Amino acid sequence: MNIRIINPNSSKEFVNIINNSAQEIASVGTAISVVCPEQGVASVESHCDEAIASLGVISLVMNAKNDEIDGWVVACFGDTGVAQCRELTDKPVIGITEAALFSACMLGDSFSILTLPPRTIKHARRVVMEYGLSDKCRNIRGIDLSVVQCLDEQLVWSAFLEEGRRALQEDQCEVLVLGCAGLSQWAKPLQKELGIPVVDGVSTAIKFAEAFASLGLGISKSLTYAMPGNLNEVADAVRVKC
Amino acid sequence: MNIRIINPNSSKEFVNIINNSAQEIASVGTAISVVCPEQGVASVESHCDEAIASLGVISLVMNAKNDEIDGWVVACFGDTGVAQCRELTDKPVIGITEAALFSACMLGDSFSILTLPPRTIKHARRVVMEYGLSDKCRNIRGIDLSVVQCLDEQLVWSAFLEEGRRALQEDQCEVLVLGCAGLSQWAKPLQKELGIPVVDGVSTAIKFAEAFASLGLGISKSLTYAMPGNLNEVADAVRVKC
Amino acid sequence: MNIRIINPNSSKEFVNIINNSAQEIASVGTAISVVCPEQGVASVESHCDEAIASLGVISLVMNAKNDEIDGWVVACFGDTGVAQCRELTDKPVIGITEAALFSACMLGDSFSILTLPPRTIKHARRVVMEYGLSDKCRNIRGIDLSVVQCLDEQLVWSAFLEEGRRALQEDQCEVLVLGCAGLSQWAKPLQKELGIPVVDGVSTAIKFAEAFASLGLGISKSLTYAMPGNLNEVADAVRVKC
Amino acid sequence: MNIRIINPNSSKEFVNIINNSAQEIASVGTAISVVCPEQGVASVESHCDEAIASLGVISLVMNAKNDEIDGWVVACFGDTGVAQCRELTDKPVIGITEAALFSACMLGDSFSILTLPPRTIKHARRVVMEYGLSDKCRNIRGIDLSVVQCLDEQLVWSAFLEEGRRALQEDQCEVLVLGCAGLSQWAKPLQKELGIPVVDGVSTAIKFAEAFASLGLGISKSLTYAMPGNLNEVADAVRVKC
Amino acid sequence: MNIRIINPNSSKEFVNIINNSAQEIASVGTAISVVCPEQGVASVESHCDEAIASLGVISLVMNAKNDEIDGWVVACFGDTGVAQCRELTDKPVIGITEAALFSACMLGDSFSILTLPPRTIKHARRVVMEYGLSDKCRNIRGIDLSVVQCLDEQLVWSAFLEEGRRALQEDQCEVLVLGCAGLSQWAKPLQKELGIPVVDGVSTAIKFAEAFASLGLGISKSLTYAMPGNLNEVADAVRVKC
Amino acid sequence: MNIRIINPNSSKEFVNIINNSAQEIASVGTAISVVCPEQGVASVESHCDEAIASLGVISLVMNAKNDEIDGWVVACFGDTGVAQCRELTDKPVIGITEAALFSACMLGDSFSILTLPPRTIKHARRVVMEYGLSDKCRNIRGIDLSVVQCLDEQLVWSAFLEEGRRALQEDQCEVLVLGCAGLSQWAKPLQKELGIPVVDGVSTAIKFAEAFASLGLGISKSLTYAMPGNLNEVADAVRVKC
Repeated sequence: MNIRIINPNSSKEFVNIINNSAQEIASVGTAISVVCPEQGVASVESHCDEAIASLGVISLVMNAKNDEIDGWVVACFGDTGVAQCRELTDKPVIGITEAALFSACMLGDSFSILTLPPRTIKHARRVVMEYGLSDKCRNIRGIDLSVVQCLDEQLVWSAFLEEGRRALQEDQCEVLVLGCAGLSQWAKPLQKELGIPVVDGVSTAIKFAEAFASLGLGISKSLTYAMPGNLNEVADAVRVKC
Repeated sequence: MNIRIINPNSSKEFVNIINNSAQEIASVGTAISVVCPEQGVASVESHCDEAIASLGVISLVMNAKNDEIDGWVVACFGDTGVAQCRELTDKPVIGITEAALFSACMLGDSFSILTLPPRTIKHARRVVMEYGLSDKCRNIRGIDLSVVQCLDEQLVWSAFLEEGRRALQEDQCEVLVLGCAGLSQWAKPLQKELGIPVVDGVSTAIKFAEAFASLGLGISKSLTYAMPGNLNEVADAVRVKC
Repeated sequence: MNIRIINPNSSKEFVNIINNSAQEIASVGTAISVVCPEQGVASVESHCDEAIASLGVISLVMNAKNDEIDGWVVACFGDTGVAQCRELTDKPVIGITEAALFSACMLGDSFSILTLPPRTIKHARRVVMEYGLSDKCRNIRGIDLSVVQCLDEQLVWSAFLEEGRRALQEDQCEVLVLGCAGLSQWAKPLQKELGIPVVDGVSTAIKFAEAFASLGLGISKSLTYAMPGNLNEVADAVRVKC
Repeated sequence: MNIRIINPNSSKEFVNIINNSAQEIASVGTAISVVCPEQGVASVESHCDEAIASLGVISLVMNAKNDEIDGWVVACFGDTGVAQCRELTDKPVIGITEAALFSACMLGDSFSILTLPPRTIKHARRVVMEYGLSDKCRNIRGIDLSVVQCLDEQLVWSAFLEEGRRALQEDQCEVLVLGCAGLSQWAKPLQKELGIPVVDGVSTAIKFAEAFASLGLGISKSLTYAMPGNLNEVADAVRVKC
Repeated sequence: MNIRIINPNSSKEFVNIINNSAQEIASVGTAISVVCPEQGVASVESHCDEAIASLGVISLVMNAKNDEIDGWVVACFGDTGVAQCRELTDKPVIGITEAALFSACMLGDSFSILTLPPRTIKHARRVVMEYGLSDKCRNIRGIDLSVVQCLDEQLVWSAFLEEGRRALQEDQCEVLVLGCAGLSQWAKPLQKELGIPVVDGVSTAIKFAEAFASLGLGISKSLTYAMPGNLNEVADAVRVKC
Repeated sequence: MNIRIINPNSSKEFVNIINNSAQEIASVGTAISVVCPEQGVASVESHCDEAIASLGVISLVMNAKNDEIDGWVVACFGDTGVAQCRELTDKPVIGITEAALFSACMLGDSFSILTLPPRTIKHARRVVMEYGLSDKCRNIRGIDLSVVQCLDEQLVWSAFLEEGRRALQEDQCEVLVLGCAGLSQWAKPLQKELGIPVVDGVSTAIKFAEAFASLGLGISKSLTYAMPGNLNEVADAVRVKC
């Protein structure tokens, strides 16, 4: 089974980090490839970034039309590009945010999200609201780091550990959700330190994609995510651009 | 990896049906066992049935304390017994209702549920409400069959096909959820006939249990699902009873 | 008029406490009897406890089929066993949680709940959510006592007084709800001390049961709470068990 | 115990009808008086009517300051004047809408409301929304009669019977709520005919007022319903006006 | 174009303050008149005040039936009298609360409200709830001043500045809403001091009224706000009273 | 005052239609310019289209940095590109969907939306949900025309008239919202034919932009819509692309 992970930002370092974690996580018989747009934004921290990143996602899906792909993961907290990807394929498409939130719901009665930077709190809340999970979500905590600072391991560890402890104490949350791709490797150490489940969206999304693919479940094409009628026009827009 | 599926009713025929589907679905390296209480109710169609079935679940989990089990699936639409099971283990525990609903959310923009008999509509709605999914749920349709009538293949097929067609047309739902255990084998044929994804809770719950177990994720013991302090008392109540 | 109060835990001391308060509260012409299961759990503090306690409720209702009972009160915060009781009778059945919450809504614009122990916060929230009252509910405060510690009068008084003062100041709640049976006698003293209405579920539930019984109103048997079709099976499960 | 029912419209006929039902319903030891404003509107069918009727309520409560009243019922569907009444007393004050809706919630899993005329659907929905009961409320059906036409018994009976049957079949509601004062006498016959509980707000509100009064529970004066600081000014406005 | 602003309290000083701001705000070609009831309450701080003020609004609209008015603004936080005004005209009618809240939603992702006195928090929340804006509303902060104290400029400035700073820091709100009429002149200075948009309901309501009037949009008369059938009765009630 | 309207699709015909209506609507002293991206999609009917259109919006705003613009209108139902535009300016930015929905709320108690084509129902619902307006929204009706077919006047008229009549009768909606840009000219004729207010988003958005600009109100830059830190990167992505 082939799972393709799209990192919607253009950072090759993030691709590597995600790829390292993904290969460890992949089930027997699953081949995982991680890609990112050639151009775009180094990290997705604003609505402008999201628009650019979505175009990158479209481009990567359209260019893959000859690849045999059984499931897709879109690896950006806020699920940027997930809807676009769903329109272009009938294979399963999983966003890391929805995967993390639904997982959290099945592991405890409430969760808090640690995301970054603070201005993206709204992007996380958008997914929480989309699925009606506000009663389960105790808090969305914005950590004052940029996404690229996530490459500095020491910085990430201390920031997430500190904010995680605060979440545990102040929010009384039962599960913690890591609100950024590229953090898979921190989930287990944080879980050990904090004593509650720590959910990473990339890992859970890979597993969900594998699950749906193996069960023959894919995106409904009956209405919202039907294939666009203007594929050439879309391709044109994308070809010039990414 | 060992996954144990609990059928909370006492019907051995359901155990067999679930087992047949489960073995086909199991990933490489996953051993699945399906169990049901010795005594109890033949099917879970009322709140009284739910209370009895929950006790059966407790009994089966407590009696399994020496078994090496990596994840649990509770196979009753309405997720009867899921909370009890979660209190008694720190391994992942997945209810087939939550698994089906969350899956449906990732496969389309809306879903309808076909459940049975009509009096259990409330049991399905309870889970929809628990997770705030009412905006995604177009309808919960009660089919006028008892759970045991699900053993009559011809009856099931025609009833679900007919109601599924109605759901498609009247609800404009994009995904269909099968609201009963023991229907795994009907998901693909219905999907083929109706042209939209048809989600079965048992299959998806097995996959989610495998997923969480493989990622080292289990139930949060920090508050709501902490181990009960009166295990002996619970064991007593259950030992006499199941 | 005969009102029967079911204490779903097996503590005779709680039966006595509830009975003492109930007799004072009973209207002229109302005979109140308080019962509890022979076996079960000493207090209901977990979902496992709830399952066992629900079975006790079923047993007590089924065994009372020859008694002339005009209304039922189920006296467990979280309304454990209420749905089961409703299926087995067409007389009014009142849970102490719903009675307390609805009363609070008619006495002020918002309320906070003091419940115990903290792990049962979720059980209280379940009823708040079931009736859509989250906007009225300022807070659910978990007091770190077990239900059985409620028998220690000094402990109860100081714990509830202290937490009540905090609720008043921090939550700006206008009404306080006592989240446990067996606390009726504390409502008035706390109300006097705190200066806002303090609602006890047992007292209000008794009054509501009297009210509906006197008006000829009972449980709707048209769908959700219809009499189960497998009464013998239920009786069997219960007879062996309680 | 003295319960006073305020009919916020100025129709003496309604006072008589309400009084007749109320006297039958009153518990032993309860004296019920029914009053209405000297001037005002013959029935409350618009927001303009509501404003006028609210002033009538204020007037009747302020003029009763020397009467010994233990509890109040405000008898207008939409609960017009309830908030005003609550500000002017620390005794319990029950609106017939909230009483009916909360009762319906304790008698079945869902309800539909029959109200009149159709333009007041919004007034009923306002109370449904205020208490978050939209998930329990299957429908609010507007009957095309004016409130005063409720005095024509034959008209009322056939209109409510017909619409009630439609509600039963089309809404699958488990309880029916009568959305107008002055209909108490129809609850039982309709209930008999339709086979589901039919709830009248006046009867249930009387019982709730008795209940709270007997338990020493009254309106919270801590914030929203504190006594207005400008009682003289209010009295002035009212004295001139009603 | 003629816009009429109704100040529902009887304070001439408020009329002057509102008028001063309104004249500055009026578009070219717009004539604005500000009126208040002859009698009534000096400020609207309770539900009793609201009932009296609503009658004032009705009176002022009915007495204006020969005036050529193209749009109405009702200038009371809590939108007292707006529904009544809507029934009596088919011209646009804007409440200052709805105008302020909708404006806030279009200027940032969240807002907090500063209102006064604290007991009117509920009146503000009523409008927030009516329009489903609770997820956008971070907080409703009650300032401990009476409405009439709003005439003391120094008091208003320091109270709103201090509470505004708290809102900014503690609520992380992106927009601030001034919860009282007569504060238009403080919006810009506060905005300058706090660095986030500060919305005044009177100003925005005037603009919305102008907008709808110029576009030929008025109140829907199809159901909820249809002209009352008993205009004479309403006129009677009002003529005697205001 | 200069208001710029962005048509996010690349259709010059739509620019002309919007421009014609806008010039009629503009207040004295307001200069309105209407622009669209050079390249992109002919109409926005899918999430892929939305991504491309958002990029067009970014491009048009960034390229206008030397223009004196006092307010922006983004003219695409679903409010595509509004968030991006808000990040790039501190002037007011109004989406036609939010403008139409908020207007509808101030003109009646409920509304239905007529949008097209059916697959964009979700895009309209997204805005309804974002602002919590589901209780006001009776229905979102998908008309089976493509956006470009909106250029065929006869087709538009008969389709909207027919569906509007159905909405009026079946949804009992009090206001109708036109769910597409380029329909301004149909609002008044439809309103005349149907007898209820018919709201067009472009017209109302223009008025709201004028309103906020004249009041000195602009987008909050404190958090969600702060200027992106990577403007050069965004400019790069856009310059190559649009």
